Amino acid sequence: MRSAPHHEATPAMTPAASLVFTTLLSHGPLTRAEVGRRTSLSPAAVTKAVRPLMELGYLVEGVDEEARPAVGRPATLVRVDGGRALFIGIKVTGDEIIAVLADLCCRIRIARHVRLTGRAPETVLPVLTALVQELLTEADGFGVRVRGLGIAISGDVDRAGGVVRYSPFLEWRDILLAEIAGTATGLPVTVDNDVRALTVAEHWFGAGVGLSDFALVTVGAGIGCGLVVHGRVVSGAHGVAGEIGHLSLDPHGPLCHCGNRGCVEAIASDPAILRAVRAATDQPVTDAADALALAHGGDPAVRGVYARAGEAIGQAIGFLVNILGPERVIISGEGLAAYDLVAEGIRDAFAASAFGTAAQCDLTTRPLPFEEWARGAAATAIQSFMGSGMWEEAR
Amino acid sequence: MRSAPHHEATPAMTPAASLVFTTLLSHGPLTRAEVGRRTSLSPAAVTKAVRPLMELGYLVEGVDEEARPAVGRPATLVRVDGGRALFIGIKVTGDEIIAVLADLCCRIRIARHVRLTGRAPETVLPVLTALVQELLTEADGFGVRVRGLGIAISGDVDRAGGVVRYSPFLEWRDILLAEIAGTATGLPVTVDNDVRALTVAEHWFGAGVGLSDFALVTVGAGIGCGLVVHGRVVSGAHGVAGEIGHLSLDPHGPLCHCGNRGCVEAIASDPAILRAVRAATDQPVTDAADALALAHGGDPAVRGVYARAGEAIGQAIGFLVNILGPERVIISGEGLAAYDLVAEGIRDAFAASAFGTAAQCDLTTRPLPFEEWARGAAATAIQSFMGSGMWEEAR
Ligand SMILES: [Zn+2]
Ligand SMILES: [Zn+2]
Repeated sequence: MRSAPHHEATPAMTPAASLVFTTLLSHGPLTRAEVGRRTSLSPAAVTKAVRPLMELGYLVEGVDEEARPAVGRPATLVRVDGGRALFIGIKVTGDEIIAVLADLCCRIRIARHVRLTGRAPETVLPVLTALVQELLTEADGFGVRVRGLGIAISGDVDRAGGVVRYSPFLEWRDILLAEIAGTATGLPVTVDNDVRALTVAEHWFGAGVGLSDFALVTVGAGIGCGLVVHGRVVSGAHGVAGEIGHLSLDPHGPLCHCGNRGCVEAIASDPAILRAVRAATDQPVTDAADALALAHGGDPAVRGVYARAGEAIGQAIGFLVNILGPERVIISGEGLAAYDLVAEGIRDAFAASAFGTAAQCDLTTRPLPFEEWARGAAATAIQSFMGSGMWEEAR
Repeated sequence: MRSAPHHEATPAMTPAASLVFTTLLSHGPLTRAEVGRRTSLSPAAVTKAVRPLMELGYLVEGVDEEARPAVGRPATLVRVDGGRALFIGIKVTGDEIIAVLADLCCRIRIARHVRLTGRAPETVLPVLTALVQELLTEADGFGVRVRGLGIAISGDVDRAGGVVRYSPFLEWRDILLAEIAGTATGLPVTVDNDVRALTVAEHWFGAGVGLSDFALVTVGAGIGCGLVVHGRVVSGAHGVAGEIGHLSLDPHGPLCHCGNRGCVEAIASDPAILRAVRAATDQPVTDAADALALAHGGDPAVRGVYARAGEAIGQAIGFLVNILGPERVIISGEGLAAYDLVAEGIRDAFAASAFGTAAQCDLTTRPLPFEEWARGAAATAIQSFMGSGMWEEAR
């Protein structure tokens, strides 16, 4: 993350404080004893972690009025004060920008969608900046400062350097996005891969809460995958991780844009399905909706295309599970629109390729609208805020 | 790990103490400042972590006489006192038992090999027990107690429960090995998968020192893989992890014992290579040495079998690297005997299947004799010792 120089001297939150904070973010108000139980911290360590966060107002403690017992003392709960700070999260797709204003609890307060007329940085960046300015103006009404901006972009993103190295959908290469957006908006900026950002949101607030090891597989324009191992998102030593889209499953399969044959993305992404449906039928097929209609109308060749896509996704999940053994795999993305057509293929191919007890891994589907991806971007901004030492200055 | 009841009440080493201890195990004697730098602990936290370990004699501190400078004060170094405790590590193969007596620094003091006349538990366990007794007698000469026994077994092993669930090579199913060996030897016993145990040794003392993310791929009778992610060995939520041997790479490939076709193990394991060489030549081929001799003699069909094996291993490593993005992949195992024949296939297939910058991952070969696997088993016993609270009692 890029931030102004005067921020860099202050220390980051301690690991224990960060753990307490994210536990309260995920689980909502808890007693100190429950915080200790869930974090495996001693009562003394919880006290030490909570104190500075309470002094600065990020955490508040109070009697749980709603759960006041008939007899005896009511429980005292610690919670994150959502109103203490605001963040902006942005997801850029090929067609639109989705922006949310989120509070410190990462609850969405305002959401905005803007269509894009082009994908070049010169077109996208002014729209993005204007949208941020609009949300900054809205934020004034809350009487609290916006502390960070998170931007989620598909492709190869170097979060530490704030650089979009390569985004195939946007056709961006080596864009210093954190620096550009930071200069334009005056905010500290975190740039991350969109699936990794969504994985953070799922870990804190979604189907990954409480799990130390899970995978999020997104199916749609591309095939993405975010991984949490030992409680932390995997980023890859060289920036690549969770790249299941380019596992080459079939040496005789369709050619992929990466140069290999039979990649999952060349079989199961929306464009690949559309191509295969066009080749399989003599009906006119302009878009994904047409293809879906033909399949739902019972066209066996078109149904076969979806079945093959499901099989590729299921086999890739089997490979992933054999290698990592996660507790759960969450399946999401726009491709879920066709889930009824691919579900059986996914299930059967997963069962066939998972080795032994790996087959016990829980597969779950989760429809996650693009606002949730933008919320993931806001979550990365909250991570950076907590990790940077800025939280100590925001008095 | 199983241990006597009176051990269970004492607390495990704190995470900071454990981190300091393993850092000193990996790097040898260090100044306190250097310990702080390598562990990211504050000077106060290093002092707090070191104190109980020094009081109990696991760590000692002293002037570095060898590096006494000509001018000024000599450096004071902290180190693990290897002689403070002993451990036994055992690796069971299909043909023999390899046992080592290791000190607290996991240095091998004595090594023993015993041939097995059969693989049934009734045959193996008495040999194993006798070997442990022999090493316990030897240990008397060192004047320090043996604090734990680690046993490394190939297959599906439940370390927490001390159970060998299924070992295909030994044909063992649901053997309560920790309990049986604990009763027979009187030692606390840790049972783990052999590749995971070797991964611990590589992380502490081998090509994985200082890396937070690496993979160890073993090639031989089977294809194994151990993973370290975020500094810790991955075990899999359901006991399966690093299972690259049964990635089904080719739907038209040879049938595997798991029921799928074209698994890496069905193409690149020693028995699979032997089968394919027999099918490819009319020469007599009794064992791996014959097959190797034919390949080194230039037989093109036999060389093709090895090339295909290399290709399968390289592709599987590519899949692993695309998913996890480790800093390094260490290739080891008996199969390295044929490395000159498979190296090109591994390199080319890895380069073809690694996506983008994932191809920058470092591939390294390491010949690791079975004694090193037994040392890995001893390392798991040291882990259990440190994690169990027994270290506080061993006065
Ligand atoms: Zn591809
Ligand atoms: Zn198999």
